[in-house]
Amino acid sequence: MGPHPAVAAIRLAVRRVLHDVLVASSAPTPPSSRPAAAPRTRPTPGDGPLVLAACSGGADSMALASALAFEAPRMGLRAGGITVDHGLQSGSDVRAAEVAERLRELGLAPVESIPVDVGRGGGPEAAARDARYAALDAAAERHGAAAVLLGHTRDDQAETVLLGLARGSGIRSLSGMALVSGAGGRYRRPFLQLDRHTVRKACLAQSLPVWDDPHNVDPTYTRSRVRHEALPVLEKALGKGVVEALARTAQLSRDDADALDAWAARAEADVVTAAEVPAEGGGTVELDTVGLHRLPTAVRRRVLRRAAIAAGAPAGSLFARHIEEVDRLITGWRGQRAINLPGRVEARREGGRLVIRQG
Amino acid sequence: MGPHPAVAAIRLAVRRVLHDVLVASSAPTPPSSRPAAAPRTRPTPGDGPLVLAACSGGADSMALASALAFEAPRMGLRAGGITVDHGLQSGSDVRAAEVAERLRELGLAPVESIPVDVGRGGGPEAAARDARYAALDAAAERHGAAAVLLGHTRDDQAETVLLGLARGSGIRSLSGMALVSGAGGRYRRPFLQLDRHTVRKACLAQSLPVWDDPHNVDPTYTRSRVRHEALPVLEKALGKGVVEALARTAQLSRDDADALDAWAARAEADVVTAAEVPAEGGGTVELDTVGLHRLPTAVRRRVLRRAAIAAGAPAGSLFARHIEEVDRLITGWRGQRAINLPGRVEARREGGRLVIRQG
Repeated sequence: MGPHPAVAAIRLAVRRVLHDVLVASSAPTPPSSRPAAAPRTRPTPGDGPLVLAACSGGADSMALASALAFEAPRMGLRAGGITVDHGLQSGSDVRAAEVAERLRELGLAPVESIPVDVGRGGGPEAAARDARYAALDAAAERHGAAAVLLGHTRDDQAETVLLGLARGSGIRSLSGMALVSGAGGRYRRPFLQLDRHTVRKACLAQSLPVWDDPHNVDPTYTRSRVRHEALPVLEKALGKGVVEALARTAQLSRDDADALDAWAARAEADVVTAAEVPAEGGGTVELDTVGLHRLPTAVRRRVLRRAAIAAGAPAGSLFARHIEEVDRLITGWRGQRAINLPGRVEARREGGRLVIRQG
Repeated sequence: MGPHPAVAAIRLAVRRVLHDVLVASSAPTPPSSRPAAAPRTRPTPGDGPLVLAACSGGADSMALASALAFEAPRMGLRAGGITVDHGLQSGSDVRAAEVAERLRELGLAPVESIPVDVGRGGGPEAAARDARYAALDAAAERHGAAAVLLGHTRDDQAETVLLGLARGSGIRSLSGMALVSGAGGRYRRPFLQLDRHTVRKACLAQSLPVWDDPHNVDPTYTRSRVRHEALPVLEKALGKGVVEALARTAQLSRDDADALDAWAARAEADVVTAAEVPAEGGGTVELDTVGLHRLPTAVRRRVLRRAAIAAGAPAGSLFARHIEEVDRLITGWRGQRAINLPGRVEARREGGRLVIRQG
């Protein structure tokens, strides 16, 4: 008798990603240095590349750790686990030590529990995330890991799309989390196309002890409100397929945003007539207004955004309405004054040139 | 004392659109046939272009009709009104006659109440919409109208984006309603950037009698559920700016989709090596797989979609998953069989060509 279907599903998802990790980690070897015929014997994990599971102790990441522990040795990979102690609740260190113990019981090695200091930048959720990824990055470097797996599911993706939608800042913010991200494609999300329900069933079927983070149901967190209030009502209004539709929207938006960014990068090379962007700030970018005018709106605005950032405007404070105003210097020219942008950057039309300069 | 701020807001929105209509309706005159100096006297509406307001009798479109009645004569335009009787409730003819009477009282002329037969295609909302636009198109032709104004607000736009999101079919379905649409840019939506609250206040301030369509609160209609259930909860979870963010997403998505469609049209010219698409069906389109492979995913999939539709696949039944499968003949070729698409169309790889053919 095979494993429970939910267990089979999470293992298949992890196996596919591990296959990609193996291909990627063997890719740098030049063809001439490979043996003429690859050895066909069962791989031994002893010295294979290391893959880490990031694990909070919750159902999604415990399922991930269990599937990694099962699949990695069969593919000649080593499997380890990292749990991050955010120190936001009393006793979180004890909790983290318990999670680490469970990871060891699954057969993962090395296993680490890493305490972090959560700052305050960008709100509590963003600060916790920043601290977590910094710790995971450092752990991956320290252990020389080929990849770090994250347990985000399709439901997390749908929530991320809704959170992006609320920003109203365009299709990049609708594109959610990537299957592969981080430096050198370090982070991979095997469960991004699996629903949370399946992943949780896989925990039950394997009798894995899981821990429910109280933050996940705390309505002071936006994501928690999206999960427990917004998505259920959206499903009721729009039908059961909403989560899947949001996840598909993420993938389509990501592909679209990538293509348009590529176009903007090429177009930039044509329309930027001069650029001086010293590392110490005070940059200037000059663009040809006729060339800009010829571009489709979507591409022109991306070029303008890139130019403003190159001149010194901080990306996070540069909103669509800023770029629209700069755009009107091109498409609605009637002698406007200079437009002030964040970071003491101004955009000014000077004859046939648009000059974007940091003061 | 000027008008109430809400009344001023709806009039300004209509004035801007009427200005565009005037520019557009004078554009076809070649420069040589224009008088040397345009007459600067106050325009007389007697023989000016006609602009129609489409009016259900609800607050949004009554506000629209009132602003049109006020602004049009001041700009040398004639203003008329159309109300469509969908015949879906008993007494709807009496109701439509009342709305027409109110439009006449506002000073609109001509005014027409047009009964339509609502079919059943695509669900009750789509069928009513199709019948309504057919009637408005016919009325615009009959009266030689330069434009038909529609009363959709930013809130309607936000609802439309959520409905599109639920389809999960990409950024075109997120782009909502256009400011200008229809044959020759006939339909215009002056209130698309105004919130419903302002528009309704303008009705109150002018003591306009309005009629609340019971369909708008009937939860059997998806849009009604989105309006009364989904959006309030989204606002609670994500903050008050959600409606504005959704409307901005619509505009950004529309620009992006336009740019990518333009790219796909150009790319198609490069990669289609042969095409035979007879009007009676049975079309064949052949594409170069190497050229396709070089395109960004977002552009390649649009080219594949265009080719499948050209070969005879009905656009409405062609989903993202179909196109993804055809795409794997290019990006994941491992000797797959032909892919079956809706409308008896199949896609098959034959060496360096992708052949899409209707059987």
